[in-house]
Amino acid sequence: MNTNRRKFITTTAALAAGTIAASAMSSSDHQKEEFPIVHHVFFWLKNPGSTEDRDKLVAGVKTLSKIETIKKLRVGVVASTEKRDVVDNSWAVSELMFFSDLAGQATYQTHPIHLEFIKNCSHLWEKVIVYDAIDV
Amino acid sequence: MNTNRRKFITTTAALAAGTIAASAMSSSDHQKEEFPIVHHVFFWLKNPGSTEDRDKLVAGVKTLSKIETIKKLRVGVVASTEKRDVVDNSWAVSELMFFSDLAGQATYQTHPIHLEFIKNCSHLWEKVIVYDAIDV
Repeated sequence: MNTNRRKFITTTAALAAGTIAASAMSSSDHQKEEFPIVHHVFFWLKNPGSTEDRDKLVAGVKTLSKIETIKKLRVGVVASTEKRDVVDNSWAVSELMFFSDLAGQATYQTHPIHLEFIKNCSHLWEKVIVYDAIDV
Repeated sequence: MNTNRRKFITTTAALAAGTIAASAMSSSDHQKEEFPIVHHVFFWLKNPGSTEDRDKLVAGVKTLSKIETIKKLRVGVVASTEKRDVVDNSWAVSELMFFSDLAGQATYQTHPIHLEFIKNCSHLWEKVIVYDAIDV
């Protein structure tokens, strides 16, 4: 096998590997490209032991899904993972939202459905922490 | 129109509406049903102003995607949303992971790739907060 042929085979193999890597990447990163703005909010209840208040807040957060700029909404409660010093499990309800861009997130903030949610549910919570991330 | 026929039409309409609602739900909640465990970690750097350290940590977190029980991984930095009292933008890097179940999350915690990441990158961070949620 001459040098050129060896080089051709090596290059072809590298290109094939590159194609596989690229297609795996685009498949797994599909959502990331579409909705790169992550808005994660944690709520602490005024009555931390009240399942009723928790459920009211969960129901309230779910009304936000009607806002068109929220591309995905997931509502959560504390998962029973291992208790570790770094794990904060003192909150009660979480809302995890994905937006296409910062403008979509800004639209959500002042949307009538969001303002209605705040009006109806803000008496339920004592503390809120918001994390806004963008995919890298 | 007799009562039975009216009842039939009403029922059919309700069923049709239900079907539409259910199919809209299953489409938007598809991911929720598959990977209901949300693991969101926020890292604060020892050198908060160091882009180099931030990028090293981002690269480190991305190695975790090889762990098979992590169904989706999104790595983030602070998004430039409006500064508000409730928004914590003091962190530097976030990792957002989705698991099928608690066992998958437990497997991740002790996975060799995770331990390798901690060995290689823990000198970069000063503080970590973890939130583990389950979809409701």
